[in-house]
Amino acid sequence: MGDELSARAADPDPLLQLLLDGQPRTRNQLMDLTGLARSTVTGRLELLVAQEFVVPHEAAESTGGRPPGRFRFNPTARLVLAADIGATHLTVALADLAGEILDSATISQNIADGPEVVLATLTEHARALLARHPNGRLAGAGVGLPGPVEHLTGRPNHPPIMPGWDSYDVVGRLTAEFTGPVLVDNDVNLMALGEHTSQYADVEHLLFVKVATGIGAGLISGGRLHRGAQGAAGDIGHIQAAGHTELCRCGNTGCLEAVASAAAIATQLRAGGLEATSSQDVVELVRAGNTAATQAVRQAGREIGTVLAACVSLINPSVLVIGGSLSQAGDSLLAGIREAIYARSLPLATTDLKVVPSRTSHQAAVRGAAAMILQHTLGL
Amino acid sequence: MGDELSARAADPDPLLQLLLDGQPRTRNQLMDLTGLARSTVTGRLELLVAQEFVVPHEAAESTGGRPPGRFRFNPTARLVLAADIGATHLTVALADLAGEILDSATISQNIADGPEVVLATLTEHARALLARHPNGRLAGAGVGLPGPVEHLTGRPNHPPIMPGWDSYDVVGRLTAEFTGPVLVDNDVNLMALGEHTSQYADVEHLLFVKVATGIGAGLISGGRLHRGAQGAAGDIGHIQAAGHTELCRCGNTGCLEAVASAAAIATQLRAGGLEATSSQDVVELVRAGNTAATQAVRQAGREIGTVLAACVSLINPSVLVIGGSLSQAGDSLLAGIREAIYARSLPLATTDLKVVPSRTSHQAAVRGAAAMILQHTLGL
Repeated sequence: MGDELSARAADPDPLLQLLLDGQPRTRNQLMDLTGLARSTVTGRLELLVAQEFVVPHEAAESTGGRPPGRFRFNPTARLVLAADIGATHLTVALADLAGEILDSATISQNIADGPEVVLATLTEHARALLARHPNGRLAGAGVGLPGPVEHLTGRPNHPPIMPGWDSYDVVGRLTAEFTGPVLVDNDVNLMALGEHTSQYADVEHLLFVKVATGIGAGLISGGRLHRGAQGAAGDIGHIQAAGHTELCRCGNTGCLEAVASAAAIATQLRAGGLEATSSQDVVELVRAGNTAATQAVRQAGREIGTVLAACVSLINPSVLVIGGSLSQAGDSLLAGIREAIYARSLPLATTDLKVVPSRTSHQAAVRGAAAMILQHTLGL
Repeated sequence: MGDELSARAADPDPLLQLLLDGQPRTRNQLMDLTGLARSTVTGRLELLVAQEFVVPHEAAESTGGRPPGRFRFNPTARLVLAADIGATHLTVALADLAGEILDSATISQNIADGPEVVLATLTEHARALLARHPNGRLAGAGVGLPGPVEHLTGRPNHPPIMPGWDSYDVVGRLTAEFTGPVLVDNDVNLMALGEHTSQYADVEHLLFVKVATGIGAGLISGGRLHRGAQGAAGDIGHIQAAGHTELCRCGNTGCLEAVASAAAIATQLRAGGLEATSSQDVVELVRAGNTAATQAVRQAGREIGTVLAACVSLINPSVLVIGGSLSQAGDSLLAGIREAIYARSLPLATTDLKVVPSRTSHQAAVRGAAAMILQHTLGL
């Protein structure tokens, strides 16, 4: 519990916490609601107003006489830079303090070009976006990477598809470019955070599963992102798929990712004489009505669903979100996943379980990157 | 997040939170540390002193002149009743507000006798313990049951080994007998809570696995018990053990519990001509050096370890505690579990993973039952 607290920027300001709901309040209301002394409320309000996080609220109508001053949260006080670095593309976005995406750009960029090249591209496009919002002050930058990240340092930890990135100081590199804190996390963690904060804020336990070239998951437990002891939580792509012996890039055999990822499906389809190398190719074959591709995706869904049934037994989530590029292949993947989960889970754990496609789609990770900075800055 | 807050008794008192560390503090120190107004601190202190949760601290030595009054937490202000109802035994205990077990009794009692008989036995022995502490006021009662419990209502939810208990109003029955709130939870959840609060309070992510007649787990995530959406989290006994088709009492086939529980091992040993019906029988055969029993326990450890490898990949805990009666069979179970986990997990997730036997042993559940009431009463 000590670890959790020390990982936060600072104790959350109780006045700011109250005002985040958007309701304007008087000084006396804030004293009543918090029990804080008048001098404390006055001092904290002065600081929050100086920081522009809180502004005096202009009453729309007067009820006669001078109304008591009210204060409200100001979501435009800062901009948040949010970036999602994928295997072949890079998305950079700006959000406000309410987490709304104001502006974004997606650029082709191969992650194998290494951190210097990729982060230079990120910086260049971030500056271009910031130039379009000249009055904006930056609260910080959140970055998602497609591999394991040590959360406290923000350094990639033996990422399999990111040559040149192992232990690279992403935080140091970007702190030199932008004002405010730089936080880095695994892209699937950020997808879970983005889907949760923007679509399911009241849900306590949610599992987000990304099915793309690889397979991974992000877990929300008790309303908070569960990163695990080394930031390695959610690494379900290397759980054994029962009865399989396919060699995985991790060096083990029968990993779920070696059996049911878009890369594994493309390999199967090529062996059957079809042209398929990427997740996008598989999606297009399914959309075109190709039977072999549809069957392969459905079977991959069953394999993923068998592993997810174990995850459901362990954590009993109320929402299981299926995202990632292969989830755009239509209903086959979801149908296979549901089939296996309902066959293998106890009734109690699935009574109210929702198994649903991602609503935020390709924006999940940048929304999560913005949410990570907001939680840090505003003490959420 | 809203759900989580509303499930708590009340907003935690910030003064009480500070004083729980046992350090005495002056009124001015409490004002400085909390930012609360003098009138608020005075009012809250009066309430806490009236409730006896806080008492004036008598200084051991004077530094000349009258020292300012100091206040400290009073762990003897209340007693907590803690009960662990097992399949064949019932443990009743009294704890103080620091969670220390002051007194306890264990009685033979078959849970299949039904809730009226079992809870009458519990009440009788609880009254006998309370009679030995005549000045104690009860803060509440925490009860562990060996089956799924709907946390909000405390009612057993289709428990497989508890005939007559389904949906029984345990809370209503015991509220009529004892003062203070009555909270009921699954025994494995409480074992996880008891082991965590008493032995690993600084650990953020811990998984407690009970291996006995059945198999189950309790998960601590971010320092808090993760109960899941229906209170069904940790139900790992019904995850599929790869390559197995044994019929399970749940109606499915190949469940871990049907393959590697003490009951499953006893069945295997009987088929080999040995006398074994209970977990205790299996433990005694292993302790007596029986090779077939030792091999069976080791193999059960491997099967459990394969499922736990998936759990480790999903949640990345730093501590994995093995408890339950079969864990007393010595090193064979733990060795089999470790073997499978290290064979199947990614290096990052196991670098600092501790796989250890339970330290609280048979007291884990009553300690957890007490901790559940303390968290509720003191707003921990």
